[in-house]
Amino acid sequence: VIETAVPSDNVGESRGSLAGLTVIDLSTGIAAPSSTMLLADHGATVISVERPDSPNMNRTAAWQIDGTSAWWYLLGRNKYAITLNLKDSRGIELLKRLIESADVLVENFRPGKLEAMGLEPKVLHSINSKLIILRLSGWGQDGPYATNPAYGSLVEAMSGLAYGTGDPDGPPMLSSFAIADPVAGYLGAFAIMAALWGRERDANHAGEVIDLSLLEAQFNLLGPQAMAYDALGAVSARFGSRSPTFAPRNVYRTNDSKYVVISASAQNIVNRCFDAIGRPELCDDPRFCSPESRHQNLDEIDEVFASWIAEHSAQDVINTLRAAEATVAPVYSIEDILRDEHFLYRRMIETVPAQDGLALKMQSVVPRMAQRPGQLKWAGEGMGASNVRWFVERLGIDEHEFRQLKRDGVI
Amino acid sequence: VIETAVPSDNVGESRGSLAGLTVIDLSTGIAAPSSTMLLADHGATVISVERPDSPNMNRTAAWQIDGTSAWWYLLGRNKYAITLNLKDSRGIELLKRLIESADVLVENFRPGKLEAMGLEPKVLHSINSKLIILRLSGWGQDGPYATNPAYGSLVEAMSGLAYGTGDPDGPPMLSSFAIADPVAGYLGAFAIMAALWGRERDANHAGEVIDLSLLEAQFNLLGPQAMAYDALGAVSARFGSRSPTFAPRNVYRTNDSKYVVISASAQNIVNRCFDAIGRPELCDDPRFCSPESRHQNLDEIDEVFASWIAEHSAQDVINTLRAAEATVAPVYSIEDILRDEHFLYRRMIETVPAQDGLALKMQSVVPRMAQRPGQLKWAGEGMGASNVRWFVERLGIDEHEFRQLKRDGVI
Repeated sequence: VIETAVPSDNVGESRGSLAGLTVIDLSTGIAAPSSTMLLADHGATVISVERPDSPNMNRTAAWQIDGTSAWWYLLGRNKYAITLNLKDSRGIELLKRLIESADVLVENFRPGKLEAMGLEPKVLHSINSKLIILRLSGWGQDGPYATNPAYGSLVEAMSGLAYGTGDPDGPPMLSSFAIADPVAGYLGAFAIMAALWGRERDANHAGEVIDLSLLEAQFNLLGPQAMAYDALGAVSARFGSRSPTFAPRNVYRTNDSKYVVISASAQNIVNRCFDAIGRPELCDDPRFCSPESRHQNLDEIDEVFASWIAEHSAQDVINTLRAAEATVAPVYSIEDILRDEHFLYRRMIETVPAQDGLALKMQSVVPRMAQRPGQLKWAGEGMGASNVRWFVERLGIDEHEFRQLKRDGVI
Repeated sequence: VIETAVPSDNVGESRGSLAGLTVIDLSTGIAAPSSTMLLADHGATVISVERPDSPNMNRTAAWQIDGTSAWWYLLGRNKYAITLNLKDSRGIELLKRLIESADVLVENFRPGKLEAMGLEPKVLHSINSKLIILRLSGWGQDGPYATNPAYGSLVEAMSGLAYGTGDPDGPPMLSSFAIADPVAGYLGAFAIMAALWGRERDANHAGEVIDLSLLEAQFNLLGPQAMAYDALGAVSARFGSRSPTFAPRNVYRTNDSKYVVISASAQNIVNRCFDAIGRPELCDDPRFCSPESRHQNLDEIDEVFASWIAEHSAQDVINTLRAAEATVAPVYSIEDILRDEHFLYRRMIETVPAQDGLALKMQSVVPRMAQRPGQLKWAGEGMGASNVRWFVERLGIDEHEFRQLKRDGVI
């Protein structure tokens, strides 16, 4: 008998807006798996395909918990993990059979590799003419850099993010964690849904192919910098934690060595901040009574807030300014986040069962849908945990063949 | 006669995956308008509603070009600009008539304000039971902070972004431009499409209400930090431009005072970097021959690259390392971006006609769809430029009434 590795809670009707959609996910890294995680969170059936002889890099990444990385538990959540060797023709055949009844295929190979595998869009569409194909890459499917190796950090360097982060007299900076990748993940999920919408609206639809690059997803976050440079000669350089266009906006240190952010542009909000720190006379101070004058007196306005904040605890600062409806926030570490009353009230972190009795904390499903809420069902599965479900129960492979495929390293 | 303010290129069949969708956009700021911009880019009809007596803050923001901010030209692109005073009952009636045939309504009022206007979801659904409502806010529709004033920078402080950015011995940092807002914009566009998909799949659909917060959109970018802290005690603190989990990954200064990023985690890629800088012997150096040992010798591995890069020009560094398929990228300003051959080849920046003969540069439509590409048609319109189109041509308001509404400040 074939032992089923499918956890019992995997079974049952899927809920959420995307229930009924089937997605084949060939991807690894952070970006594309973030796209398919969003789809799975909202009820899509996502089948994550992994090489049987080489675990997905998200399993072997940092933060190992019982032999698997936290990245896999997170990005693999709500997905079915199967193994399939795409260097074996039987593996390719099985993939093609899965594609026959799928809505979406997601890949993040280096441009050209899908073609080299004999799985270019034309071939995939000959199997399933309505298939939506998301091709996520670092630089896009064509152009001079298309086949350059890509990391999110390189994209952050070239898209303007690093250039606008850091002190004015220091080097450009990267954050300590990936930004470009999960950002592209959000955009990829949108793109898939937009393409599906287009498909449904057109009886003669030819399957859509989406070319999404990390570079374009990240570059789009810069707002109108290209326009401002072209029309006004403005270059958004590093400005510390200040804004190049309004003040106050900075990080300030409290007397208990914590940090808070104040950010205000409208005059009425700035006035609330002055009132809150007991300096109502500053509302009429010519240096601070208009956005333009405040921006011409950056050091002075920062000094007003910095000196007051330096004499108070973070809790005092937050309480005092919040009570005045001023725009203040504490700088939170993950430890602070896990204790915050608003994060708790909104249940922004859930504890999810995983293999071997683990219980893992992760972000809950976003955003919240009133009628068809998404659902956090399970953490990333073990390798091949859903092989039986897909190969035996769905494709109808018999016990003998299943064992043979396993022995031959095809699954 | 009513003078039509609709530019001639506004007319004609809309293309793109979302052609035929109608979106009423009551929002301002960066986040929600970014969501509706994505929809408009892919062919949706987006009607942006503005108070006749008070321009959208995106018009009055920084980077004024001919009296309008670059932000409006960008975020208002491909949208129809109409004016409507929602404090006047006639304004509310006109809005309700537009909603009758709309698919989506987007708002980013402070939670409770839509209700105070008598436009809570129940009312909107009594007009159009299938309406999808995106409610985008700083902190979400409920919880202790729900009605606190929100700025993207405050969200960046509380979501862990600032905490993980900056030097280890320095304060947390914000980038000089908004990140949380456009990130939430991507997620909002996905959410709208997911809700529309759910609506189409269910004949008994009750209109969806989406509760999306900047805080949750940004917090979700942190990856498995909650899990890593809970299970392993790991706190992702500031680490300069290094990664807390792999090396090399840093910003390095060249001998012509530019900066490049090197980022590599897999051993074969690191080895390519060593080869490229003429140090093949380091591939076997016990300090650098595994991810773990490299991570234990952070200063040493940074010194290897920093010292070589400090003796070469940025162009030399890039050419040499790219030729070896090593993972390197230049740190680009917007000026560099506008000149880069890959940005040019991919046409990542387009020049768009705007009012008064302006020609404005902005990001092209992302991502690229092969069958139904999106289209950049026009930059943000002047105030009320599409009033005639919507109030007269669509709702059938006669000339006399149109003038009266204008005189009374309703439109």
